[in-house]
Amino acid sequence: MSSVDSNQMRPKELEDATLTVSDWGEKRIIREIIAPLSKSARLRVGVGDDAAVVNFPPGQHLVISSDKIPEDLLSIQFGLMDPFHHGRYLAMVNLSDVGAMGAKPLGLLSTLALPNDFSLSYLWSFFEGFVAGGAEWDTPVVGGDTGWASAICLSATAFGSIESGREIKRSGAKVGDRLFVTGNVGGFGAALAYFGVAKRQGLSLEPAEEEWLKSKLIKPIAKIDIGQKLSASGDCTSCMDITDGLYQSLVELVQASQVKIVIDYDMIPIHPTVRKVSELIKCPIETIIFGIGLDLELVGTITGHAAISELGVHLFGTVEDGPPEVVLKRNNKIEKISTKGWQHFSGSAMDIVTSMYSSK
Amino acid sequence: MSSVDSNQMRPKELEDATLTVSDWGEKRIIREIIAPLSKSARLRVGVGDDAAVVNFPPGQHLVISSDKIPEDLLSIQFGLMDPFHHGRYLAMVNLSDVGAMGAKPLGLLSTLALPNDFSLSYLWSFFEGFVAGGAEWDTPVVGGDTGWASAICLSATAFGSIESGREIKRSGAKVGDRLFVTGNVGGFGAALAYFGVAKRQGLSLEPAEEEWLKSKLIKPIAKIDIGQKLSASGDCTSCMDITDGLYQSLVELVQASQVKIVIDYDMIPIHPTVRKVSELIKCPIETIIFGIGLDLELVGTITGHAAISELGVHLFGTVEDGPPEVVLKRNNKIEKISTKGWQHFSGSAMDIVTSMYSSK
Repeated sequence: MSSVDSNQMRPKELEDATLTVSDWGEKRIIREIIAPLSKSARLRVGVGDDAAVVNFPPGQHLVISSDKIPEDLLSIQFGLMDPFHHGRYLAMVNLSDVGAMGAKPLGLLSTLALPNDFSLSYLWSFFEGFVAGGAEWDTPVVGGDTGWASAICLSATAFGSIESGREIKRSGAKVGDRLFVTGNVGGFGAALAYFGVAKRQGLSLEPAEEEWLKSKLIKPIAKIDIGQKLSASGDCTSCMDITDGLYQSLVELVQASQVKIVIDYDMIPIHPTVRKVSELIKCPIETIIFGIGLDLELVGTITGHAAISELGVHLFGTVEDGPPEVVLKRNNKIEKISTKGWQHFSGSAMDIVTSMYSSK
Repeated sequence: MSSVDSNQMRPKELEDATLTVSDWGEKRIIREIIAPLSKSARLRVGVGDDAAVVNFPPGQHLVISSDKIPEDLLSIQFGLMDPFHHGRYLAMVNLSDVGAMGAKPLGLLSTLALPNDFSLSYLWSFFEGFVAGGAEWDTPVVGGDTGWASAICLSATAFGSIESGREIKRSGAKVGDRLFVTGNVGGFGAALAYFGVAKRQGLSLEPAEEEWLKSKLIKPIAKIDIGQKLSASGDCTSCMDITDGLYQSLVELVQASQVKIVIDYDMIPIHPTVRKVSELIKCPIETIIFGIGLDLELVGTITGHAAISELGVHLFGTVEDGPPEVVLKRNNKIEKISTKGWQHFSGSAMDIVTSMYSSK
């Protein structure tokens, strides 16, 4: 899986864990880490020139997005994230944004801002993971920037292509459409609750369940293939990826589309381990599935006549007439949802997780 | 000039200089600062969806690059950089990379990582400058990311298009080509020497000269038009923009092209004010013109038969057979160049400037 195109061996010198980015300097890092790992025969011009030059499919639109990952990732604070998956994570959250428009990804650029004492060995593994994350969806790393900063700041840009008129926006949901999601929700949120709260209270699950939760946290999978299927079907009216929690995502969708979404409680796809975490920490399951979490599943709406079985999506609600809001239908009664999603500048993720679950 | 497409008025509330990004939070910042200032009728999908969707010219290649600007910009340390020009600077250094390939820029994305106490008023002016920098070259802001970080980290992505085979790489210089630059060199370096060393020693120039130096530092201009002319001519064999100093740029060019460059000392285009700074601080002019500095001029090589007058470039050397090195020809003698350019992780820019000039 790692560095598919390049098959580069880690230089022996990097076994010395005390080496830092200031020992090599920017130019050598680009020459001996970034450039060899990024090597791809498919690029006209790759890493090392002023800009990359990439073949672009005729008659398509360009789809492009940039995304930074938090420096205080909870998976790192929990001691669960290794350098390889850290880099893969950066690739995956960026690919996911392009995939959520229904596009085919074509390339990734990384912007790595690092303090002088950042480990070269970590950087190699991180970048290997970044390249491997791209390779999972056949996407080369085409360029980027690596430079000094007083604190680690890791971001990337993903781009891709889509046929004219096939992009799936957040704003197209119509009354009568059905609500879909591409997989289980709440796995990431349950992992936060488990590693951030339950384990600290001395509570624990079976090793296999713990492993599943860990994989949700450190190895999310962008749903690039289903995004392209949804786009090609012509039946998908709106779509986005879940990065700030399911509720926050749906709020943004109803605001963009100016419709009301009614979630059918019994139809929400929830993994048994998520239910077990809910019981373990005595926290209502809604708090976990609607709260903060980066599941990278796609959520959106499709027309009434869409062929569900061919799209690989799961239905769990409807689009109705009314003010733009998201409500829950349980036992034939409509309920408000009180959980909040994630947004920057409003406190640390760890504080939010602790306050969400600890008092329950 | 500012925010050409959108003509947005700064919200009255932002006159309160004590407001910070944590007072509004990410979603409101995107809704009330980023989205309105980025508004452009030319985008299929702009800020606010998972990714932007942009019309792409048929039959062209995509040219794309990401670049971070240092958090410790010397122009900020000198108290010279205002928020508007700070944002414009981020746009300009990114556009310059795309322009150095000969491409026509099509869009910009910003990635702004900010601490909780970052001023909202500063952010508005900064983003206004970012949008205005793009507008100088008719380039809309199409998206990006805004999020929390423990230290300010500002980066962007620029992309554009170019006809197949017209991209100008660093690797095409051939023996017999002539060396060109698109304007005066050393203005940025002289400004560093003046504001970083001379003024601190109580030395000073005339107000108009000081103003010129300041403009070099805070308002560099990407040479997008000349890059496109060079590309269209078919006579430009290699090209890059000067961001790490003239000498460092030429070293990277000779390494990529595997040729030797001989600079004709008497032909280097130097502004009189740069000469005055050299005299003022009693520092050899080579130290200033070859040392660190972000002039954003394009430097490269053209064939022997190219029509100079139509391209708007200045010749100052030749490409010769020999090992990949950059040497200086003065009074018919060949000299080595000892000055070093800028690279990350090798010390602070202020330390380098001080050590370059103070002991002279």
